Amino acid sequence: MIPVIDDIRAAAERIKGIAVRTPLLRNDALDEATGAKLWVKAECLQRGGAFKMRGATNAIAALAPEVRERGVIAFSSGNHAIAVSTAAKIFGISAVIVMPADAPKIKLDTTRANGAEVVTYDRVNESREAIGKQLAEERGLSLIKPFDDANVIAGQGTVGLEIGEEIAPDIAIVPASGGGLCSGVSIALPNARIIACEPQGHDDIARSFVSGKRERNAPGIRSICDGLLTEEMGDITYAVARQRWERVAVMSDDAVRRAMKFAFQRLKIVLEPSGAIGLAAALEGGLDLRSKTVAIVASGGNVDAETFTKALAS
Amino acid sequence: MIPVIDDIRAAAERIKGIAVRTPLLRNDALDEATGAKLWVKAECLQRGGAFKMRGATNAIAALAPEVRERGVIAFSSGNHAIAVSTAAKIFGISAVIVMPADAPKIKLDTTRANGAEVVTYDRVNESREAIGKQLAEERGLSLIKPFDDANVIAGQGTVGLEIGEEIAPDIAIVPASGGGLCSGVSIALPNARIIACEPQGHDDIARSFVSGKRERNAPGIRSICDGLLTEEMGDITYAVARQRWERVAVMSDDAVRRAMKFAFQRLKIVLEPSGAIGLAAALEGGLDLRSKTVAIVASGGNVDAETFTKALAS
Repeated sequence: MIPVIDDIRAAAERIKGIAVRTPLLRNDALDEATGAKLWVKAECLQRGGAFKMRGATNAIAALAPEVRERGVIAFSSGNHAIAVSTAAKIFGISAVIVMPADAPKIKLDTTRANGAEVVTYDRVNESREAIGKQLAEERGLSLIKPFDDANVIAGQGTVGLEIGEEIAPDIAIVPASGGGLCSGVSIALPNARIIACEPQGHDDIARSFVSGKRERNAPGIRSICDGLLTEEMGDITYAVARQRWERVAVMSDDAVRRAMKFAFQRLKIVLEPSGAIGLAAALEGGLDLRSKTVAIVASGGNVDAETFTKALAS
Repeated sequence: MIPVIDDIRAAAERIKGIAVRTPLLRNDALDEATGAKLWVKAECLQRGGAFKMRGATNAIAALAPEVRERGVIAFSSGNHAIAVSTAAKIFGISAVIVMPADAPKIKLDTTRANGAEVVTYDRVNESREAIGKQLAEERGLSLIKPFDDANVIAGQGTVGLEIGEEIAPDIAIVPASGGGLCSGVSIALPNARIIACEPQGHDDIARSFVSGKRERNAPGIRSICDGLLTEEMGDITYAVARQRWERVAVMSDDAVRRAMKFAFQRLKIVLEPSGAIGLAAALEGGLDLRSKTVAIVASGGNVDAETFTKALAS
């Protein structure tokens, strides 16, 4: 079921005091480069380093207490893992996280440091959905889906709610893969034109917009944007995308690296590749943003030193 | 003349809409590492990338219009240069900035990009104060002092005012060199114990606290903290220091690099060395912060990729 704005308002109440209200940053150089009035929603400064904390917290808070006590399970390439393990720790319940074996080390380490049990799988040959489902059934755990869930989408939508409380954007530029964040933001900002961003080579959403049916990515395709490698959108998020998203900006790894460097030099924030893709789209995506009020969601900052250093050298 | 808290409130009104209100960040790992409830005032997210924008804007705004129109001059190792040139650009007046020839390239470039005329000097053999004074007299420019000025101190004090509007810190940890920021913050937070931080080898304030008289640094001493290399405190700031600052934490370059890395990994903000010294003091300064509410001023983020990369490798 597609959440409505009141679900997002309810989520905002539930996550208060757990997730933080992140700042909306302005920068002169960014405005000069684009001719727009740009605002960057710095979700890298969110607890856990990414927006995912919002959806995970809302989904866990919405469970019946006796169900919640049995623990939760999640499958994730990284930030959802950190978010669910952090939220589980706060609620004092156990968490099992199914993660790809090649997930960034910082994300594996952080999830374990939160006290979660990490189960790894092979991203190319195994299905995380199948592994997650089986473990959930065996142990009586509640599956906290990464995106295709009304409570998760409503939680991520609080990003848009906070943006709308401070500015009235003409355009919102949002990273998308599973589509939970972009769906939530588009529901929270009904008057904004929505531009979704995805990595080159992993552009199922752009292809879906062309073909008119839900496309998927071949498993195993890599991109620097490790947080945007979902195989396909969910039922709910695809429905929202068709209703609300105007277009998709497909960005190269190099453009994303330059955006990470821009964020370092000008905004003074640390963005992971997936978190910088919206900034890359604003700077190099060929979008006409002139004279518009634009919100860019910088979705996270969980990047290892090696990847970041390489971006700074670009 | 030492400014009072009403001067800081007046400064807050003057700089509104020019300087931004920066967020106060919390982090679980930081609290766990110190046993305190720590808040980081992220002045790296300030316009121009450092707190200096506050004092420069307040000082320029306080000039009589007919005086302001003739232009301003400043001498600075970097962030004050960027701040004065940015504020001058906003007020539509000309600015001459006297900078050491070995200032970080990013700071020289940014100052020039703001339209200021940059005059370089030799940090070891020349006095920036003398050069600045001569140019000011020749061209009828108003000298915007970097720290020893009531309007500048009041402007920097708005950092403390904003902290005090959100939390009631037992302790404030603040970088100090000329002492403008630390003086302003200590006046704005009359109930907080003030810990000033300065770099090893450039510890004139710590030595002043021991000797009971204002000490100075031999010219030419280097530190990674390029923003904290003032030769000695000013008359006003030294008077405030004696009245209000409780102690001085002297930190090594290596501790500062580790704090920069911590800020990257955990807080997801970019800190220049001088901006990270307060975090270094909280993490490695041997301070007993247990169970205290502590505000750390992270004063700026204008660091080049090479220095930052080296910190990440530490």
